[in-house]
Amino acid sequence: MGSKYSVGLDFGTNSVRAIIVDVASGEEVATAVSDYRRGEAGVIVDAGNPHVARQHPADYLECMVECMAEALGTARETSGFSAEAVIGIGVDTTGSTPIPVDAAGTPLGLTNAFTDDPNALAWLWKDHSSMAEAEQITALAREHRPHYLEKCGGTYSSEWFFSKIWHCLNVAPEVFDAAASWVEFCDWIPAVLVGDTRPANVKRGVCAAGHKAMYCEEWGGLPDADFLGLLDPRMGALRAKLYEKAYPSDVRAGALCGQWAGKLGLPEGIPVAVGAFDAHYGGVASGVAPGTLVKIIGTSTCDIAVAAKAGAPLTIPGVCGIVDGSVIPGMYGIEAGQSAVGDVFNWFVSHVCQGDAGTHAELTAEAMKLRPGQSGLLALDWNNGNRTILVDARLTGLLIGQTLHTTRAEIYRALIEATAFGAHTIHRRMAEYGVPIDRIVTCGGIAEKNPLFMQIYADVCGTRLEVSRSAQTCALGAAIFGAVVAGKAAGGYDTTEQAQAAMTGVKAEVYAPNAAAQEVYGELYGLYRRLHDSFGVAGTTDGLADVMKRLLDIKAGVRDA
Amino acid sequence: MGSKYSVGLDFGTNSVRAIIVDVASGEEVATAVSDYRRGEAGVIVDAGNPHVARQHPADYLECMVECMAEALGTARETSGFSAEAVIGIGVDTTGSTPIPVDAAGTPLGLTNAFTDDPNALAWLWKDHSSMAEAEQITALAREHRPHYLEKCGGTYSSEWFFSKIWHCLNVAPEVFDAAASWVEFCDWIPAVLVGDTRPANVKRGVCAAGHKAMYCEEWGGLPDADFLGLLDPRMGALRAKLYEKAYPSDVRAGALCGQWAGKLGLPEGIPVAVGAFDAHYGGVASGVAPGTLVKIIGTSTCDIAVAAKAGAPLTIPGVCGIVDGSVIPGMYGIEAGQSAVGDVFNWFVSHVCQGDAGTHAELTAEAMKLRPGQSGLLALDWNNGNRTILVDARLTGLLIGQTLHTTRAEIYRALIEATAFGAHTIHRRMAEYGVPIDRIVTCGGIAEKNPLFMQIYADVCGTRLEVSRSAQTCALGAAIFGAVVAGKAAGGYDTTEQAQAAMTGVKAEVYAPNAAAQEVYGELYGLYRRLHDSFGVAGTTDGLADVMKRLLDIKAGVRDA
Repeated sequence: MGSKYSVGLDFGTNSVRAIIVDVASGEEVATAVSDYRRGEAGVIVDAGNPHVARQHPADYLECMVECMAEALGTARETSGFSAEAVIGIGVDTTGSTPIPVDAAGTPLGLTNAFTDDPNALAWLWKDHSSMAEAEQITALAREHRPHYLEKCGGTYSSEWFFSKIWHCLNVAPEVFDAAASWVEFCDWIPAVLVGDTRPANVKRGVCAAGHKAMYCEEWGGLPDADFLGLLDPRMGALRAKLYEKAYPSDVRAGALCGQWAGKLGLPEGIPVAVGAFDAHYGGVASGVAPGTLVKIIGTSTCDIAVAAKAGAPLTIPGVCGIVDGSVIPGMYGIEAGQSAVGDVFNWFVSHVCQGDAGTHAELTAEAMKLRPGQSGLLALDWNNGNRTILVDARLTGLLIGQTLHTTRAEIYRALIEATAFGAHTIHRRMAEYGVPIDRIVTCGGIAEKNPLFMQIYADVCGTRLEVSRSAQTCALGAAIFGAVVAGKAAGGYDTTEQAQAAMTGVKAEVYAPNAAAQEVYGELYGLYRRLHDSFGVAGTTDGLADVMKRLLDIKAGVRDA
Repeated sequence: MGSKYSVGLDFGTNSVRAIIVDVASGEEVATAVSDYRRGEAGVIVDAGNPHVARQHPADYLECMVECMAEALGTARETSGFSAEAVIGIGVDTTGSTPIPVDAAGTPLGLTNAFTDDPNALAWLWKDHSSMAEAEQITALAREHRPHYLEKCGGTYSSEWFFSKIWHCLNVAPEVFDAAASWVEFCDWIPAVLVGDTRPANVKRGVCAAGHKAMYCEEWGGLPDADFLGLLDPRMGALRAKLYEKAYPSDVRAGALCGQWAGKLGLPEGIPVAVGAFDAHYGGVASGVAPGTLVKIIGTSTCDIAVAAKAGAPLTIPGVCGIVDGSVIPGMYGIEAGQSAVGDVFNWFVSHVCQGDAGTHAELTAEAMKLRPGQSGLLALDWNNGNRTILVDARLTGLLIGQTLHTTRAEIYRALIEATAFGAHTIHRRMAEYGVPIDRIVTCGGIAEKNPLFMQIYADVCGTRLEVSRSAQTCALGAAIFGAVVAGKAAGGYDTTEQAQAAMTGVKAEVYAPNAAAQEVYGELYGLYRRLHDSFGVAGTTDGLADVMKRLLDIKAGVRDA
């Protein structure tokens, strides 16, 4: 029997990637990327409102066809490959990226009534126009349904499902009224592929539902209509147009329909997995498991972990999301993250040093010569707020310990250390609530290119760091679920864990903690935590928690004056 | 009657300046500078100990003769000038710069027994080799004579008289034993000029005595022998070799002797004023008066103020020095200061931006476009510790409020604002203890060249800022006291205030507070003060006062490891 293959379709912010993977080994036999065409690199913005970010669903479909064709072309050059040997498809996307659809499941922006109306397109994850609605949802939930917030870090975000839909109701009621339902991007693509996008028939993924729409089986699925009615009676009425049940990704969304089999050049009838978010699939493809946390490190950081289900439902205060089955079916999926990591170093190099990539390299080389604690500096990593564990966008950076001799390399290293202390704070919080982390697998550019960063993280966190083998873990994760929904009988796997064992791996280099460095960082972390709590947690004894916020208020007042 | 002239001799760290001033108008008819020849720009250093800084008294004498001759040469080109019309001489120097002398008052480094021995030369103000002794003196005074510390900010410095002499005893007992007495640089030069340097005959100035040697008439002059004996019995015995009384600068040290009249080309017998420190004379020449504070702004800042004597003796906690008659005879002289001002901006430009003077100009221009509060940044100005009001060298810098968009110009402005908040803290402390400040006269390069800096200070302090007319205020101050000791009968003045009224002035430009900016800075100052107290004052509710110190301890530990 020849090799079997699985297809992963990974929809990012600016492009789609198609990947074809050998199911037995995880070898990536072909990969192709197609950039979105509309807007600015695929993002439709609004000159009058910097918070608006939309996408055109036509881009999704056109680019998916294009990159799939290119990937198949490459794969055909591989000895023994045949499109007939593809046994399943997985899909991941950005999110929460909800799309208003008509009764047929067609995005309203693709219908005559709303052609190209930005409010009728996909509301991209990074659209922040619904900040006011998010604050109100948080306040109402805190008062009436506090348990709804327990699984999502205590604060409902402007990036999420209901904030965006409610904002649509407030700014474009005609779109809201015309929507038969709203479908997440990651649920809509699989529905397209199986040939049935009618809202009631779309298999919704628990990843999007649980992390962004307050879905939880403990309280009967989505938020109840009475609660949504507190936002607006029409939001209460929306509840019946949504869904009752959401599924993990080892469930089939359906079988690839003839029309899309033809467009993609893949066998009709192969299973398509229920969709999920990119980072979660990246976690799976990097080998996330109980005790092993996957850290996707880029401009910001996303942490993906899992925990076996045992006893009482899991809650971890301040952690962005805990959802049953959102990463590995049958386990709790846990998402956490830091809102700026690479972005902090980029800010320092570009805005303060007015340097470039060469400056990064130079500062890294100089910072490498410094020993932990040698600079006398300590920083808070909050230049873009704090996502986990404080869940507070209105926090800012801090640097302490400067003398007249402090160098820019010392500051650069202090900023790396600050992000490591931020990471350690997340891991400690997880451990305190029963999810200990004893191994970290990283992916992303910094993880592959910056040994200084990696060693500091190992020393600060007191944990081995390894690097994921794949350079496109999200797409590989999608392919893994393609193999899982295909099942062992078709040449795939019966469980996600079996697929992970065969199809994922790490690189040879391991960053192990150095005991001497760990000891100094232990002391520094104690001081970091004092500053963290003093400036970040209202009501602590060392309370300076209002200082950053008052500075932001003054800044806003000056801007408005 | 033709014009009368006064001579000011201003001994700085690297050179001597001679100035010849028209007594009636304060016009500077001639000025000349002579650089010291020995050591590094006049400072004799020790390759093995970066804290050592000595000077050779021969430099003082040779350079004084040289620049006086040059100044007289220039003055003779002025119509109507004649050396015979010089009616008095004033002298200011750096300090505390004590010199060990023999029974004739000759510096031991000029005697055969100790020729050029660094420990037998002048111990320059910035010699910090006696840090351990200073700490012990502070601790002993705190325990046994707490009132000794009340007039000098609560901490005895390594830069001061007894720390240095005790250190000499510890490292060079043969020099200590050979010394018949120790004479301050500012007292020794007038003694040389009047031709009698025998220690018992030297008229000691109250400026050096009060600010650096714990001299105060309230407790009978210098520290008592019992207290000094606690340091070391030989220090106790030293007490009898010093002096009982110190004098303000409207007192004559004596008359110019024939030998030095010849060397300097000045009339024999004209009066020489009791000497004092450069900054204090700078204050006088800038018009210091009750309510008017003089701020000498450079790499660090020195504040000079005066207060009329009324009721109980004046104490202002945390203020470096309060000495009866040290600035204007008959009033309290008050000295305060910030340990880094220009140095903080220089650090940011040179170490962080890696820029130059052009960068300063560029950042100033950009920062000028920003409005108060607009950056959301706030800094503490402690990169070189805090001299007033915390008197704590072990404090470090802090910057808070950074986002991913923060620019270097915003940081530059925040650093200027931080030094202004530090200045405001000093002025408020003075006002709280009965010395209100309603006008500030500045001198120094920044004051003359940076309107942004001046306007920020006016807005933060809520006080008019004016700029002293003279560019060499210290030398002018010396000339003012030359005119005062000459007296009205000889064409001078009977009081310092009369001399100030005639001989000093300010430039036309005035920086007045802007009400809107003042309001925003009022809010920001409230936050600055919260951080100042939290990080700087042990035992406050918001107490983080150990954080900077623990970082320094860790840093020291790493260095030693």
